[in-house]
Amino acid sequence: MTSVNSAEQDLLAIVNAQIVTVDVSGTVIANGSLVVGSNGAIRALGKGSVPHDALETIDARGAIVMPGLINAHTHLGMTLFRGLGDDMSLEDFLARLMPAECKVLSPEAVHAGTELAALESLLGGITTSLDMYYLPEAALAVAMSSGMRIQTGPNFLESDGPEPLPFNERLAWAEKWLAVPRDSAGSTGWLAPHSTYLLGEDHLRQIADLASRYEARINVHAAETVGEMQAVAARHGGRTPIQVLSDTNLLRRAVLAHGIHLSDADIALIAANNASVVHCPASNFKLASGVARILDLQRLGVNVALGTDGPASGNDLDLWIAIRLAGYMQKMMAHDPTVLPALEIVRMATINGARALQIDHLIGSLEVGKRADLIVLDADSPSLVPSFDPHVTIATAVTRADVCHVIVDGRVVVKNHMPLTIDRQSVLSAVRALGADVLASVNSR
Amino acid sequence: MTSVNSAEQDLLAIVNAQIVTVDVSGTVIANGSLVVGSNGAIRALGKGSVPHDALETIDARGAIVMPGLINAHTHLGMTLFRGLGDDMSLEDFLARLMPAECKVLSPEAVHAGTELAALESLLGGITTSLDMYYLPEAALAVAMSSGMRIQTGPNFLESDGPEPLPFNERLAWAEKWLAVPRDSAGSTGWLAPHSTYLLGEDHLRQIADLASRYEARINVHAAETVGEMQAVAARHGGRTPIQVLSDTNLLRRAVLAHGIHLSDADIALIAANNASVVHCPASNFKLASGVARILDLQRLGVNVALGTDGPASGNDLDLWIAIRLAGYMQKMMAHDPTVLPALEIVRMATINGARALQIDHLIGSLEVGKRADLIVLDADSPSLVPSFDPHVTIATAVTRADVCHVIVDGRVVVKNHMPLTIDRQSVLSAVRALGADVLASVNSR
Repeated sequence: MTSVNSAEQDLLAIVNAQIVTVDVSGTVIANGSLVVGSNGAIRALGKGSVPHDALETIDARGAIVMPGLINAHTHLGMTLFRGLGDDMSLEDFLARLMPAECKVLSPEAVHAGTELAALESLLGGITTSLDMYYLPEAALAVAMSSGMRIQTGPNFLESDGPEPLPFNERLAWAEKWLAVPRDSAGSTGWLAPHSTYLLGEDHLRQIADLASRYEARINVHAAETVGEMQAVAARHGGRTPIQVLSDTNLLRRAVLAHGIHLSDADIALIAANNASVVHCPASNFKLASGVARILDLQRLGVNVALGTDGPASGNDLDLWIAIRLAGYMQKMMAHDPTVLPALEIVRMATINGARALQIDHLIGSLEVGKRADLIVLDADSPSLVPSFDPHVTIATAVTRADVCHVIVDGRVVVKNHMPLTIDRQSVLSAVRALGADVLASVNSR
Repeated sequence: MTSVNSAEQDLLAIVNAQIVTVDVSGTVIANGSLVVGSNGAIRALGKGSVPHDALETIDARGAIVMPGLINAHTHLGMTLFRGLGDDMSLEDFLARLMPAECKVLSPEAVHAGTELAALESLLGGITTSLDMYYLPEAALAVAMSSGMRIQTGPNFLESDGPEPLPFNERLAWAEKWLAVPRDSAGSTGWLAPHSTYLLGEDHLRQIADLASRYEARINVHAAETVGEMQAVAARHGGRTPIQVLSDTNLLRRAVLAHGIHLSDADIALIAANNASVVHCPASNFKLASGVARILDLQRLGVNVALGTDGPASGNDLDLWIAIRLAGYMQKMMAHDPTVLPALEIVRMATINGARALQIDHLIGSLEVGKRADLIVLDADSPSLVPSFDPHVTIATAVTRADVCHVIVDGRVVVKNHMPLTIDRQSVLSAVRALGADVLASVNSR
């Protein structure tokens, strides 16, 4: 047993658990316990029973306990537009979506859409999301009320959008945003230049300068479609998105969403800059954007995390689907069923996401001292029986149906599949009520 | 409203439903009712409320009601070996699996594995499965007790297996099997020659002869891997599996599992013989077997259904995963997000499966006079809100988490996510108890 001392009463103990730690060795504890201390961190972890004085005990009844999933690329508020533009290309989809967003998105609407997204995410075992969306104050409010970790910050793109601020005013607003002190997870310390196709070099450099002054992290779309590659080459003198990000000082430790159409030189630049790639297979395959070179990225030491992308292109916030699509597709494309083995896929959905967000010292694995962000799967799910290797079970059989309990920062936010921090009927009603506006915004075009 | 008269009391009414009929026009009834008559058939279907005298009413509360899913290729009893051979090729997997099957499979073990499979299938919205496995009497017993439709029949392959009968005795046993009168769905009228790589031409012809005498339907693996193509060419004078099946009179209206490595001539033969191809994307991609030419098959008029394959290669019995993998992968490989649109995928998982099994006059769509095999999705699932087009919702957002009620032949077998016909704890215990034997069977090799 590993543990640290705590003078105060423990918050929570989880017993009879098959603990999938996702630590550096991929340790699995076949029958163990995990204790959450008074501060919301994992205080003890070990085989069998572990001494504790927690008031609340969860009996996992032999089921898998694992780190909460980390969705490293999404647009949470986009749930409002789920299923609005299907069986079409990214370009056609954006041409349909963006005007609808301008017409429908108020702070209240973004809040409703983001709260629905938090409900969907938490019920599906996602405990942290890196969000990129308009009016990001709504996401922070939902993070506070729902308990899901949401990392976010101001977006930059050249369109009027629902936040029609001229660039300089937007930059000033972003600076105010960054000046607010961050929490320990740095959830507000982000800037999100949309992409190198929707921003010119001068603006990209100004964003990099601001980021540098506040040590802000960068979240950006890169190399998603062939159309993007052509647009970036035309706009930026034949360069690739990765070259432009590097030249404008935005690549260092950046989170690169998609990362599909990468040259060998691009991958070397990404590796040299310790940037992460977030693979979003549901969106990439559904939109026929392309297949990311995951194996090559990993071979060259690039950290690869998983994302759902927005629920209007995905069409959901389901990282279990991403796990299946990522693993099976890479095996298929490599003509080799041995590549991306189960533990590697599990890492992509957990610790690699934490690494991308630069909070792997806090979350992403179950280890003493880390924050207690974890999920307990359903012991009675027929799909998970038998289980000879829990990493294989996670990579090939678990779905969101199997997420029984969800704990974030030591707080139980889902218990027996029921959300404890979000009023399900109220958020469903709010989003349904916006449906007519969404449809009208499309039909009126 | 469409309806037929019935003198006796209705069994069941489903109201406030978004009815996805999957009829020939893809009709959706935005707010409707469906009445199941005393005989277990759909007696009436229409907008708003429909007159009925049913004792039991299910309020769908606006959720999608659709035909039960049809799993047109699986090996149900193989749940016992789930996750036993992962991150390896089909050939390596079979070399591991087949000896384990010989050691572990008793009639009781196959029954336990099949009952677990029925539990998993029904909870996930599958109401009919075409099974291919040893000791098929177990599957019929589970069909009877669980209420899931299982179609099955004797297997033929050249290995000792858990049924070590010499070929002639096996043929005689199969004839006795076929001589038992079928029910209206013909659930026992099947013969399953494993494949053209595990059977010689003489045996294939004898199976075809028997099938012809009893009008039995044929369920066979075909064109799954490159290794199979080479083995069949070597064994059968350079022919393809499809040519061999055609030459041995086994191709007519056959159900061809996988159908990946098909030439244009093979596809033309399949079309000319009104055979069906069952696409099993989870297994095919996970094992890196290949990507079936779904679009070409459809273009030439071949009926394409969906299957999970066995849960030891899959690793689950989840047709929602198959729906995602099939749709997204075909879009990706075609570099065209418009191919295999949502309604087409929904057809593959429902009516096309019924057509493959030659029972599309009974099930596969919601129409008056057909058997009441249907599922009611969860009105409160955040992943399904909003829903602007229910076919898109089904093809891109539903998972087994969302299957709320399941009805087969008018009988409610799952209610509020709880199985009514299977004792969950008892079957989970039985399968867990066999786990040690399964592990020992592998370790002792």
